Amino acid sequence: MLAISGKVPRERAMAMTAHILVSEVGPRDGLQSIATIMPTAAKKAWIDAAAAAGLREIEVGSFVPARLLPQLADTAELVAHARSIPGLTVAVLVPNAKGAAAAIAAGAHKLTLPLSVSETHSLANLRKTHAAVIEEAKAIAAMIADLPLGQRPHFEGSLSTVFGCTLEGAIPDAQIARLAEALMAAGCDEVGLSDTTGYADPASVRRLIALVRGTVGTAALTGIHLHNTRGLGLANVLAALDCGLTTFDASLGGIGGCPFAPGASGNIVTEDLVFMLEAMGLDTGIDLDQLLEVRKIVAAALPDEPLYGFVTEAGLPLGWNKAA
Amino acid sequence: MLAISGKVPRERAMAMTAHILVSEVGPRDGLQSIATIMPTAAKKAWIDAAAAAGLREIEVGSFVPARLLPQLADTAELVAHARSIPGLTVAVLVPNAKGAAAAIAAGAHKLTLPLSVSETHSLANLRKTHAAVIEEAKAIAAMIADLPLGQRPHFEGSLSTVFGCTLEGAIPDAQIARLAEALMAAGCDEVGLSDTTGYADPASVRRLIALVRGTVGTAALTGIHLHNTRGLGLANVLAALDCGLTTFDASLGGIGGCPFAPGASGNIVTEDLVFMLEAMGLDTGIDLDQLLEVRKIVAAALPDEPLYGFVTEAGLPLGWNKAA
Repeated sequence: MLAISGKVPRERAMAMTAHILVSEVGPRDGLQSIATIMPTAAKKAWIDAAAAAGLREIEVGSFVPARLLPQLADTAELVAHARSIPGLTVAVLVPNAKGAAAAIAAGAHKLTLPLSVSETHSLANLRKTHAAVIEEAKAIAAMIADLPLGQRPHFEGSLSTVFGCTLEGAIPDAQIARLAEALMAAGCDEVGLSDTTGYADPASVRRLIALVRGTVGTAALTGIHLHNTRGLGLANVLAALDCGLTTFDASLGGIGGCPFAPGASGNIVTEDLVFMLEAMGLDTGIDLDQLLEVRKIVAAALPDEPLYGFVTEAGLPLGWNKAA
Repeated sequence: MLAISGKVPRERAMAMTAHILVSEVGPRDGLQSIATIMPTAAKKAWIDAAAAAGLREIEVGSFVPARLLPQLADTAELVAHARSIPGLTVAVLVPNAKGAAAAIAAGAHKLTLPLSVSETHSLANLRKTHAAVIEEAKAIAAMIADLPLGQRPHFEGSLSTVFGCTLEGAIPDAQIARLAEALMAAGCDEVGLSDTTGYADPASVRRLIALVRGTVGTAALTGIHLHNTRGLGLANVLAALDCGLTTFDASLGGIGGCPFAPGASGNIVTEDLVFMLEAMGLDTGIDLDQLLEVRKIVAAALPDEPLYGFVTEAGLPLGWNKAA
């Protein structure tokens, strides 16, 4: 009687969605635009608590030079720490082959190399042309291929600003398709779509998934990094979910964004995303009550940073727990 | 080149969606939970500006006793004013047959009678059992039938708390279906779904649309009133849109909510809804830049009330206007 209206029985949900993955990018994408350095111990506590709440993939940092992003200078230590958590995929961002070498040395399970499909943005963000980024991708793939089987990290090329750029506006389809192909040809295991600027809408999400899958194949596009800049984050997740995508990035408390895309802050709030997926009867493996508690760790370590989230404000619906 | 990625050409959008209707409920649902009385002149200016921006339906008030809701005491005057705007559908809420008589006398084009599918909520909100509300619906339908053809307002029965109630939790399907049937049998032209409590999710939206349409027929359910209480408002709109619903309620600046459902405030923000629909290539007939200007009227008249909206915070994407 108290089950949430529309709740799919748990056994059916499991069958439907055994592989929905919420990837927590807060420790990287959330923190990278925050000036106050979060102590390494607090980051470890965050990662531990997030994993304990059921998150199975966490992007713990980025292997960029510490002078550029002092906030993420402890990434190698965080990778080592996070690797000790059973079942957790430890993801990191790498801007280039040098960063990838460090990530591999640290033992990261997944490397993401961003390639901004807007060349203007690529130059502003990574100071590299498209051709130069593809060369980095090739060098990273070669490095990974030299590792013994079983020690090779997963390698994703992320098509950033793919829904439009604050500097260039819309990017032509042909250019997006060409770059997706180039990343796969360079040796990426898959490509991802990234709405760096918060320009995506459900129709463009569906259209670009079809475009990129038509170019690189369905298996090579499973994940999407969406922002909530214009309030469409969860609607865009729904559109991607309907297309069969299974990995969704989000940031605890919605902190973070892209410092090089003005006005483009606002990751999807992990708690709200998990609420939507679980309310729909999809099994994320995450305990929402426990996840809401993780906010306290971040709030205590960054007392001056706003944390967002509708579910935290409104509370869970009556009967939520009894429905699970 | 500057068209928004994913933008559907205008001529195709027109063919797809000639009848998408954004219904502005701010002057009723927005204001009813605000203590500061908005001057009638400001309400008229708001209605005028909203209609000038392209809104084709506005719920201007509610025919409830002035002592219960002094904020809406000027509803008859607003109906008379709004009727003078060519092409505008003037909608009002009516709690009972007495209110409907006043609405008909004022000349409203559309009457909405809420029937809370949670009887506990119905008693708290309208102080009426289900049977008593159905009797009111019959009396209203009889009143309308007595009017000459061409003067009969459209009569909607709105199934409120249909996605769950803060007092009762989930409501059984059979009860929802029975009440939808009873409203149609009483003489309503259509039923609507209302997420009074902000409990809806995309799966329950799809499920309840199928349930109610399966009971009363597809033509008898075209509209939905969603809240953004837990951040899922636009995702829920997308789910309803995919099911073929065409009328979506929203409130300028997201003001308002339901005073009898604690923690359940938060209408969908009209500006963000229009942004999503237009970005998807759907033609709402609304000029978004002009709509954003309407906020100034509301902000000036209610300086102490917060206005929400992601699009206002983030601005429109680069190239937005050139894409139209």
